[in-house]
Amino acid sequence: MARMLAVLLLLAAHAAASASAGVTSPYRRSLLMLPDMPLDADVFRAPEGDNAPEQVHITQGDLTGRAMTISWATPKHPGSNVVRYGLDADNLNLTAEGTVRRYTWGGTYQSPYIHHATLTGLDHSTVYHYAVGHGYTVRSFSFKTPPKPGPDVPIKFGLIGDLGQTFHSNDTLSHYEANGGDAVLFIGDLSYADDHPGHDNRRWDSWARFVERSVAYQPWIWTAGNHEIDYAPEIGETVPFKPFTNRYPTPFRAANSTEPLWYSVRMGSAHVIMLSSYSSYGKYMPQWTWLQDELATRVDRAATPWLIVCVHTPWYNTNDYHYMEGETMRVQFERWLVDAKVDLVLSGHVHSYERTHRISNVVFDIDNGKAAPQINASAPVYVNIGDGGNTEGLANSFRSPQPEYSAFREASYGHATLDIKNRTHAYYEWHRNQDGVKVVADKAWFTNRYYLPTHTN
Amino acid sequence: MARMLAVLLLLAAHAAASASAGVTSPYRRSLLMLPDMPLDADVFRAPEGDNAPEQVHITQGDLTGRAMTISWATPKHPGSNVVRYGLDADNLNLTAEGTVRRYTWGGTYQSPYIHHATLTGLDHSTVYHYAVGHGYTVRSFSFKTPPKPGPDVPIKFGLIGDLGQTFHSNDTLSHYEANGGDAVLFIGDLSYADDHPGHDNRRWDSWARFVERSVAYQPWIWTAGNHEIDYAPEIGETVPFKPFTNRYPTPFRAANSTEPLWYSVRMGSAHVIMLSSYSSYGKYMPQWTWLQDELATRVDRAATPWLIVCVHTPWYNTNDYHYMEGETMRVQFERWLVDAKVDLVLSGHVHSYERTHRISNVVFDIDNGKAAPQINASAPVYVNIGDGGNTEGLANSFRSPQPEYSAFREASYGHATLDIKNRTHAYYEWHRNQDGVKVVADKAWFTNRYYLPTHTN
Repeated sequence: MARMLAVLLLLAAHAAASASAGVTSPYRRSLLMLPDMPLDADVFRAPEGDNAPEQVHITQGDLTGRAMTISWATPKHPGSNVVRYGLDADNLNLTAEGTVRRYTWGGTYQSPYIHHATLTGLDHSTVYHYAVGHGYTVRSFSFKTPPKPGPDVPIKFGLIGDLGQTFHSNDTLSHYEANGGDAVLFIGDLSYADDHPGHDNRRWDSWARFVERSVAYQPWIWTAGNHEIDYAPEIGETVPFKPFTNRYPTPFRAANSTEPLWYSVRMGSAHVIMLSSYSSYGKYMPQWTWLQDELATRVDRAATPWLIVCVHTPWYNTNDYHYMEGETMRVQFERWLVDAKVDLVLSGHVHSYERTHRISNVVFDIDNGKAAPQINASAPVYVNIGDGGNTEGLANSFRSPQPEYSAFREASYGHATLDIKNRTHAYYEWHRNQDGVKVVADKAWFTNRYYLPTHTN
Repeated sequence: MARMLAVLLLLAAHAAASASAGVTSPYRRSLLMLPDMPLDADVFRAPEGDNAPEQVHITQGDLTGRAMTISWATPKHPGSNVVRYGLDADNLNLTAEGTVRRYTWGGTYQSPYIHHATLTGLDHSTVYHYAVGHGYTVRSFSFKTPPKPGPDVPIKFGLIGDLGQTFHSNDTLSHYEANGGDAVLFIGDLSYADDHPGHDNRRWDSWARFVERSVAYQPWIWTAGNHEIDYAPEIGETVPFKPFTNRYPTPFRAANSTEPLWYSVRMGSAHVIMLSSYSSYGKYMPQWTWLQDELATRVDRAATPWLIVCVHTPWYNTNDYHYMEGETMRVQFERWLVDAKVDLVLSGHVHSYERTHRISNVVFDIDNGKAAPQINASAPVYVNIGDGGNTEGLANSFRSPQPEYSAFREASYGHATLDIKNRTHAYYEWHRNQDGVKVVADKAWFTNRYYLPTHTN
């Protein structure tokens, strides 16, 4: 009861706050662009041992979390391609055989051996221990499977975008770790390798070593961003997404998708859809077809009431940087998301933080002149979380005056957490990186669009 | 002088006409949907002779027309992979070696052997004779290379879209042949094989036999439409454009593109850009990058003043059918085309005919409320020519009242011709199929946006 009272008080406080105009936070971090941490930084250190497995990361391996895909790299030779795992760290009695591959880049770079193995038949909400490597260079990790999907199953997501590999990135990752989420919804732009000459793919390796400390222990769910495209015809690389798709598998087949860049997962009470800003979304095309079917037939709000969409390029963003870049995709899909009563759309790309009110702009028909965002209780909240801390610096030029649909915006680095409590309420916080510590600088209670559709937040 | 006077009189007449409101032509063809012609129809007949080459078609093989790509199919075995050609029909003293391939479809269909050979080092404006096959089944054809690009070089294009293979399609093709163009700009949707169960790929074969009578003798320049996607996961076909790209090569590399679905050619005084509605046009992606570079660095209006863009899904279309489907791509690229002073945008997809005034809708910034098409002398004319006659029938539901930007619209089958006279003027006609004969139902003189930018038409 005490907790419920606290929740109600918070809601009342928020309702009072949301009646006021949007906030452009006066707080600003240094706008100095930081270079990536040097390749010999400790956070990039390869593990000791001959051909030691490195760059370990895991992601959900099926639709609901009874499978987990383990990925790792071996630098010198393929080594063992097997994951040993089990419930007891001292008795890894199960094995999963993986695949191994390498890729070349630009005629000069040769990737390490990249392994992917999917552990299947797992139980929900269960800790599994696993080990990769063999001989003297076995490395051991563990993860907890997500809870079985259900309408009141709590789950806490970390929301991180545009992370990169600067000291700011390191702060963001550390702050997220301290906040203790169950899984990360990563909104695209991982390594920023393509900001280096020739898209230096060693930066894909260093990034994977850097984030291993989190992503080897809990699933990160990947959305592709523009820094995953790696389209470089000047060095003969003309197939988009080559490093990314070689390194980061997604469970797209389990979601009835035919391509790894758009898919969905169910975790706890959430149904999370990943879309690709950088694939065709033309009518009749695979992504369009898939999303139509997904919303019509595979989303079950009664069972997983929280419907979240991740798409790298924002559809709403009041920053001059990348302004209206998402317009082409918004025009194509916004109506579907409003009709589906999506709770939350997460984007990155713009290197600042912003949260909108529930808005839509879906009545324009070319001839009627009605083309303005309107408050709409059926529409999603849009959150821009492209503030992970990469080397490109902050997007600090907000449009003025602040449009009515913008609830809070600030040009700082940080990350957010979405703590889904039950079928009706989720508590959201944005954590600014502030002089080495994390500070909650924006927060909101979101009410579910399926079970509480008439609430305005 | 007499001719110039005639031109001036026509211009004056048109100026008077264009001051009036848009025309919704009262003329209507039967709205009955026609099935495709039966597979044993004469127009689909395979040529006599053992393993006789069939489905012969040609397209420009380089940027300016000094190369021509010859394609053909052999049904039983690869046969000869060589094109013999020369200036004298009785002395084909040159040879070009081609490639050969087959593809499977849906686990049941096996394509014939598909050959592609590019003749290079040709002279402009020159008739070449060529032959494919060997032994008793040699088949001979000829073509004339396009004229060397230059600002006053006349050229006459046929404009055909959404052709299909009904009796209407046959009328359209015959009428175009009677009009005698130099080359066809084909605006997408070739065979409509995908309207048959399992995307019956025999309909790709029959279509290629049907149009051979024109396209073996003059280059058709291909734009991909939605009926080229052939995305059919239900039968295991998950890679878009498989039949189309196997059968219809394009000279994309000569235009510095990395994919066959977007590219350009120069013919006479025209620079023609083909875009793909059904590929990613997201910022940073290959098509986006290519178009940006193309407009900035490879279009030379002084040399080839007529800038034409072909894109299957219309950006402006006042028919209820497919209304606003092109909006997502318009939002992405319209500004570039207006800035580049494109003369003409050709589209199909909607099965009727429409021509707009010069309009643009490029000042919307989400917050300013300015989202309506405006007359703009820098903007292209949009022509919808999706009226080739396919089996899906006519799109006969125009929005009412006719928007101001719509100059002429009619739900009939037909094709158009664009007869470029010189650097300033081009004569355009739309030819309705009317009870077996062709009738000019719409016509216009277009003035060039580079050399006569202040003229309104």
